[in-house]
Amino acid sequence: MIVSLTIRAILKDLMGTVEQIEGTVDILNPGEPETEVTGIITAFSATQNIVEQAIALGANLLITHEGVFYSHHAASEWLEGDPVYHAKKSLIEHSPIAIFRYHDYWHRQEPDGIMMGLLRELDWSDYVEEQQAAATILTIPAMTVMEAAQYIKSKLGISYVRAAGDLSLSCIRVGILIGYRGGGMMAIPLFNDHNLDLIIAGEGPEWETPEYVRDAGHQGRSKALIMLGHAESEAPGMKYLAEILADKYPMLPTRFIAEQPIYQMV
Amino acid sequence: MIVSLTIRAILKDLMGTVEQIEGTVDILNPGEPETEVTGIITAFSATQNIVEQAIALGANLLITHEGVFYSHHAASEWLEGDPVYHAKKSLIEHSPIAIFRYHDYWHRQEPDGIMMGLLRELDWSDYVEEQQAAATILTIPAMTVMEAAQYIKSKLGISYVRAAGDLSLSCIRVGILIGYRGGGMMAIPLFNDHNLDLIIAGEGPEWETPEYVRDAGHQGRSKALIMLGHAESEAPGMKYLAEILADKYPMLPTRFIAEQPIYQMV
Repeated sequence: MIVSLTIRAILKDLMGTVEQIEGTVDILNPGEPETEVTGIITAFSATQNIVEQAIALGANLLITHEGVFYSHHAASEWLEGDPVYHAKKSLIEHSPIAIFRYHDYWHRQEPDGIMMGLLRELDWSDYVEEQQAAATILTIPAMTVMEAAQYIKSKLGISYVRAAGDLSLSCIRVGILIGYRGGGMMAIPLFNDHNLDLIIAGEGPEWETPEYVRDAGHQGRSKALIMLGHAESEAPGMKYLAEILADKYPMLPTRFIAEQPIYQMV
Repeated sequence: MIVSLTIRAILKDLMGTVEQIEGTVDILNPGEPETEVTGIITAFSATQNIVEQAIALGANLLITHEGVFYSHHAASEWLEGDPVYHAKKSLIEHSPIAIFRYHDYWHRQEPDGIMMGLLRELDWSDYVEEQQAAATILTIPAMTVMEAAQYIKSKLGISYVRAAGDLSLSCIRVGILIGYRGGGMMAIPLFNDHNLDLIIAGEGPEWETPEYVRDAGHQGRSKALIMLGHAESEAPGMKYLAEILADKYPMLPTRFIAEQPIYQMV
């Protein structure tokens, strides 16, 4: 028996039982829901490199967490005169690839699929104390900030993290915030509300959370912050998604593609 | 003759001829306009360390670019339960220090005072081709991205920058965007509109400008991006301000205080 799967069927599974999200950024563009899926690629972002790899692999459904054109929002009128935009748009339009952005509905699963992926990659799932909507609170075996940074780099296969605070501080109480949730209003209250030693986040404005950590340390209330990078904190969730989809649709070639880090340290 | 200067008089000078800015974040808090100034400290941010140094130096006017409490906006109700916030607030309230945030009006000078400070520090003022409201376009002597990064690190006295794109790319056409202006909608159009090789910025969301630079390179349209860090891009403008004020008010002890980098690379 040959079972054929449409994009519509897969997207219905991805939505799960999450209530409809008003103003969601999760859209299928380009793509037709009735298209039969030949293969699935998941990735953090639809970089031109990954779009090309997906096409070369014969996949026709690319599921990414971030948008295609350098913005959280789909509108791209501001790029109308740009040759890089047009070349990428033309490549996609002249290919069989459909692109689905799986952002809001993946975060809104309970627990958040992106967070689950990161916890699995860190091998810290057993240490979770509380899963909040936007953060996870853990009690980990005691390690210094430096040791935590080295552990994370090793587990995630990344070459650097940015750290604020005293690197020799011993950490047990840890909060994790993925993606852009490292900003002050999300991160700072967690320190006090949950008696945290360390927050591990993706990215956030530099004048917010790390400046709080600096002041806290100056007052003798040592806290620490490790910024992983946005992609570094969320790509594991898209890798995890590929595993789930591969289990669910064994008849479909499905894989996650990793990208190079966006920045080099010089 | 002893000339006494009030905070009001100094603030009037700082506003210059800039038209009133609606909803500005530039406020004197705490502080009374009629207070006689005993000394001025300028800094990128009013960290607790810098507040303490200003008090120890006998200055009673601290002029900073960013806010005191980890946010672009002055409202701090969200910090009401936080001990770090209360300790810092109490220190300030029980000290003679007045704090003026000089952000919007310093950027709105023509040319932007923060940009002027960075160009001076980089010794690139002579290479300016166009001063826009939010960006400066330069034609510099040809150097690779790697050489530009090393030059900038040396001139600004910083230990690292983050770079995207091909480090061996030769750069002549350069755009500079300070502070948080490194985001996609501000930075990306500059590449094409001004035929830029390299953008140097403070900070911005990771999924925007550097992802564009990645795609551009993949298409053979090599571009590059150097992210200095927010404070690293704007502190020179507050150092420059101290020089201007010292010249203008020779009777007042006036100095800039630098802070440590907010992040360590691990």
